[in-house]
Amino acid sequence: MALATTDMTMARAAGEEVANKRVILKRYVTTGFPTEDHMEVVAGTARLDVPPGSAAVVLRNLYLSCDPYASARMTKQEQPSFIESFVLGEALENFGVSKVIASGHPDFKIGDLVWGITGWEEYTLISNPESLFKIKHPELPLSYYTGVLGMPGLTAWAGIFDVAKPKKGDCVFVSAALGAVGQVAGQLAKLRGCYVVGSAGSDDKVNLLKTKLGFDEAFNYKKEKDLNAALKRCFPQGIDIYFENVGGATLDAVLLNMRQYGRIPLCGMISQYYLEQPEGVRQLVQAITKRVRLEGFLVFDYFGQYRKFEEEMAWYLKEGKICYIEDIADGLEKAPAALIGLFSGRNVGKQLVAVALE
Amino acid sequence: MALATTDMTMARAAGEEVANKRVILKRYVTTGFPTEDHMEVVAGTARLDVPPGSAAVVLRNLYLSCDPYASARMTKQEQPSFIESFVLGEALENFGVSKVIASGHPDFKIGDLVWGITGWEEYTLISNPESLFKIKHPELPLSYYTGVLGMPGLTAWAGIFDVAKPKKGDCVFVSAALGAVGQVAGQLAKLRGCYVVGSAGSDDKVNLLKTKLGFDEAFNYKKEKDLNAALKRCFPQGIDIYFENVGGATLDAVLLNMRQYGRIPLCGMISQYYLEQPEGVRQLVQAITKRVRLEGFLVFDYFGQYRKFEEEMAWYLKEGKICYIEDIADGLEKAPAALIGLFSGRNVGKQLVAVALE
Repeated sequence: MALATTDMTMARAAGEEVANKRVILKRYVTTGFPTEDHMEVVAGTARLDVPPGSAAVVLRNLYLSCDPYASARMTKQEQPSFIESFVLGEALENFGVSKVIASGHPDFKIGDLVWGITGWEEYTLISNPESLFKIKHPELPLSYYTGVLGMPGLTAWAGIFDVAKPKKGDCVFVSAALGAVGQVAGQLAKLRGCYVVGSAGSDDKVNLLKTKLGFDEAFNYKKEKDLNAALKRCFPQGIDIYFENVGGATLDAVLLNMRQYGRIPLCGMISQYYLEQPEGVRQLVQAITKRVRLEGFLVFDYFGQYRKFEEEMAWYLKEGKICYIEDIADGLEKAPAALIGLFSGRNVGKQLVAVALE
Repeated sequence: MALATTDMTMARAAGEEVANKRVILKRYVTTGFPTEDHMEVVAGTARLDVPPGSAAVVLRNLYLSCDPYASARMTKQEQPSFIESFVLGEALENFGVSKVIASGHPDFKIGDLVWGITGWEEYTLISNPESLFKIKHPELPLSYYTGVLGMPGLTAWAGIFDVAKPKKGDCVFVSAALGAVGQVAGQLAKLRGCYVVGSAGSDDKVNLLKTKLGFDEAFNYKKEKDLNAALKRCFPQGIDIYFENVGGATLDAVLLNMRQYGRIPLCGMISQYYLEQPEGVRQLVQAITKRVRLEGFLVFDYFGQYRKFEEEMAWYLKEGKICYIEDIADGLEKAPAALIGLFSGRNVGKQLVAVALE
């Protein structure tokens, strides 16, 4: 891989056309999981200036986030959806951390560090930079702005504090617990004085949950023959809050173990997205007799609270109250494999791609 | 059938032992729907006085309510549940309207009209009469206290106003819409200025919904090949609130048609209770992308608000703002068939049993 250094970039005159490696969508996903073959890493070019009179900025991308939802954009959406399909032959887009290297916008100057939606490429022209967040805590690892300080962290914070509303002593279960969102959700619940159990797909992940992230208990769901029994073992008194990341059979087993007035923030259902026919959830009747609330939420509704969240989370990180495990792929060439790895749980912690040196 | 008249009853001296026809549980339901054969109408006896020194009351039962949930008590509950199993050989129990004919309790006097849990028999000794509600509006049909002024009405009121929280203009769908709860839920939503559509299982019921109950639209779900298409036809803009009474395939079709920030009070899932294996709900992912809240609730949590509800509902009834359709079976002999008829939707409106003249 070729990492452009800051000096090299800065030395390039504005207006110069430079090489711009890109990960493009080669064809739409029609059934099942996306594969690396749906993407292609191609050589392109970019201009490092903004069009005259425009308020655009040019970003040099440092870190790109791999998120399950992004792959939904790799299918051709037939109906209006909350997310738009990627354009064939164009670079994928997703959250990333970037540096402003040219700006026609009064609020952004060269050298500003930002995070927001950018392209899966080395350089991206952003026409509406108002959608970017300036990074207020560059003293923390910048990559965190793809995870614990970015969209996944805000998702966990919203799901736990706004939807689940944990009380001290609540029993909390988090699936995909070492994922980008799960590890934050579990630790936030711990900070509220909850008993927290996570599930993950390998013994290594389970070990990290217990030793590094302070989960009270964790189990490898692939080794449990009976999820219901595993939950009964971990939650003899039942579950007050289930932070739902996976769907399907896990949700059914959880419903059997929910306590009265339980809450289930519905964050994701990664086990279901790529099935021809989703598994059926058969235990919803439990939600009636136990007065359980299941509530879907989307992080986009919480971007207005981002600054409040950023300050709170930066403080937790500096105080060592929350730690964050990342799985960093090195270079754009490895981005397709990194994204696809999410669907088999190959990543250990938040998956991201390092594109360029900071 | 033999209806005891008030005069006859009053003429009987306290302490006298009288004939007391009863509907008893003959055997527990082990699989599928309960049938008439699980019950038996038997001749029994009752004493019309209360034990010396006790605070019990003796009730003469006037109307008995047939509710789907009551049949859950006809199964042997292996695990602790929110409802207890009936005792074999004893009279069934459920909500009813009764007159106090003997009392050892200072708050109840002979002649008081009450509603609450009583026996499926002519006379019932109630050891803890504090659980009974005195009837404040005897000028309305007393049978209404098994329905619109009783548990089903309170259920609809709680589900609509506390769980669903409709706003003017919201699009509301009610399944089992001519049922004891559904007809009240739909009319309450209409009173809030909502557009309300109901589904029911016969053309006669559909006609009543539109002509008598003021639903904006209604359809016979048995005649619709494609529930999703039926909902799209009735709700071109989508559904804001779904008052869930049936579960299964209906819930899946609804999830496909929910609007952003929709609410689904989970009141019952009558289509699922008697299946060996419940149908799976496959469209829960829709609840994430549309930020939908599904919330189970139980009427028992709202009994503390009963007096507020009773005044509000009595006013609606007197003003003609809500009307209520009842299906009254005549006499205890017909009680088993009336209860079982609920599961095939044979009843048209709230099913109850008249036991004795008022």
